Amino acid sequence: MEIRKAESYGFCFGVKRAIKIAEELKDATTIGPLIHNNEEINRLKKDFNVKTVDGFEELGDVKKAIIRTHGIEKQNLEKLKKSDVEIVDATCPYVTNPQKIVEKMSKEGYQIVVFGDREHPEVKGVRSYSVTPPIVVASFEELKDKNIKKKVAVVAQTTKKISEFQKVVDYLTSISREVRVFNTICNATFENQDAVRKLSCEADVMIIIGGKNSSNTKELFNISKESCYDSYHIENESEVCKDWFKNKKFCGISAGASTPDWIIESVISKIKEICV
Amino acid sequence: MEIRKAESYGFCFGVKRAIKIAEELKDATTIGPLIHNNEEINRLKKDFNVKTVDGFEELGDVKKAIIRTHGIEKQNLEKLKKSDVEIVDATCPYVTNPQKIVEKMSKEGYQIVVFGDREHPEVKGVRSYSVTPPIVVASFEELKDKNIKKKVAVVAQTTKKISEFQKVVDYLTSISREVRVFNTICNATFENQDAVRKLSCEADVMIIIGGKNSSNTKELFNISKESCYDSYHIENESEVCKDWFKNKKFCGISAGASTPDWIIESVISKIKEICV
Repeated sequence: MEIRKAESYGFCFGVKRAIKIAEELKDATTIGPLIHNNEEINRLKKDFNVKTVDGFEELGDVKKAIIRTHGIEKQNLEKLKKSDVEIVDATCPYVTNPQKIVEKMSKEGYQIVVFGDREHPEVKGVRSYSVTPPIVVASFEELKDKNIKKKVAVVAQTTKKISEFQKVVDYLTSISREVRVFNTICNATFENQDAVRKLSCEADVMIIIGGKNSSNTKELFNISKESCYDSYHIENESEVCKDWFKNKKFCGISAGASTPDWIIESVISKIKEICV
Repeated sequence: MEIRKAESYGFCFGVKRAIKIAEELKDATTIGPLIHNNEEINRLKKDFNVKTVDGFEELGDVKKAIIRTHGIEKQNLEKLKKSDVEIVDATCPYVTNPQKIVEKMSKEGYQIVVFGDREHPEVKGVRSYSVTPPIVVASFEELKDKNIKKKVAVVAQTTKKISEFQKVVDYLTSISREVRVFNTICNATFENQDAVRKLSCEADVMIIIGGKNSSNTKELFNISKESCYDSYHIENESEVCKDWFKNKKFCGISAGASTPDWIIESVISKIKEICV
């Protein structure tokens, strides 16, 4: 069986940057997981003493706090800045961008629409920057019972599918007089999605590796399923199952933006081992 | 055979306003036809001495000029204002709106995209307000070989179909970081289009009445054809053909925004006469 990795996959710029920050700073604490990958979080804890607390309130007397790649709520960042903790901001610049847009546009009187998962940490951060109540929707259908103003500004969670974002934009265009569309989906997301779309058309089994809580990995998995019925979303090599590869000729591999290479390689080794 | 008019059809606000202006002013001259309906233009000429010249240069020594509903190019309006001619502006306010948007957005550095027919008088007027070279496209496909900037503002010819405009917006969203979408399609257009969409699903023959050069009438005809194969676009009752109604049970009628009621009624009389 041939095994081929997608042309673009895995770690994005923002994740690489955050890991480098955490490794260099050492002994720091992140509020919420730095990235959405448990294995990598464990490695950082073991090798660089990077701890994770669930919420802002649990920081206790830590000296160095890292803001996770997804960012945090504006009010929490402000509280943090007033405390004695040394703050290092590892928010991905592609996430800081929609935060700034939402703040500016809401101040200018635009109704804010955020296309994303309401409880995803990135979206919680982004929507907290709106000075007026923002509308958060996970699909264009959810807009139908919302009271939308004539002037709207719309941003997307960085890891969303462009085609779903376009549906949101289409709906807004049909009911509002002015829609300011900020395509805040990040390029790495685009590239990984394009590559998985291509590969899943050729492969007869697809393995998508990444955290089960990783939004961008879930999107890769959704795209993969569209063309390849036998698509599987796993976190690490322990989940690989022999049955998946029975009578298969071509296995495609992709991984979310927070999946480190060492996990991808261990999955590939496991598949090779199993298929011998 | 049942004959039924669409729930919304014919004269829009801007056309009614322009005709009232022309009737009240009398003895005036319009640059290009006031509205896209030859029969109505002839009536205004006969009853109110409203003349039409092809271009700005042909005005000669006229005293009163009416700006047509579609508007005219900015530079021509400015020249006209400097002359001794009394100017009455019958530009539809829904057309003045995209003119203003295009001027403002181009001054703010946005790449202007106009979705419309390049040589349609309305579009010629609207695009003339851009201070930087605008891109004019009749479909999203035409955008593919254009060099589009990161910040774009897009307007639509007032009589375009919303679904085609959405395709243009979708394309721009996929390649630009910020797209300012101004839905400048006028409500009357929306309503007439919705009504013809509904009626053409029930009727087995559809008659769409309006000028052959009328953009909004052509769109009504296109929509009608989607659901009713036997759709006909005519200008007046002289074109009505007996064969069209053979074995038909339900004839739907719609008319463009510049089609006067008296033409619609004469078409209906003709159909009734033929089908007896």
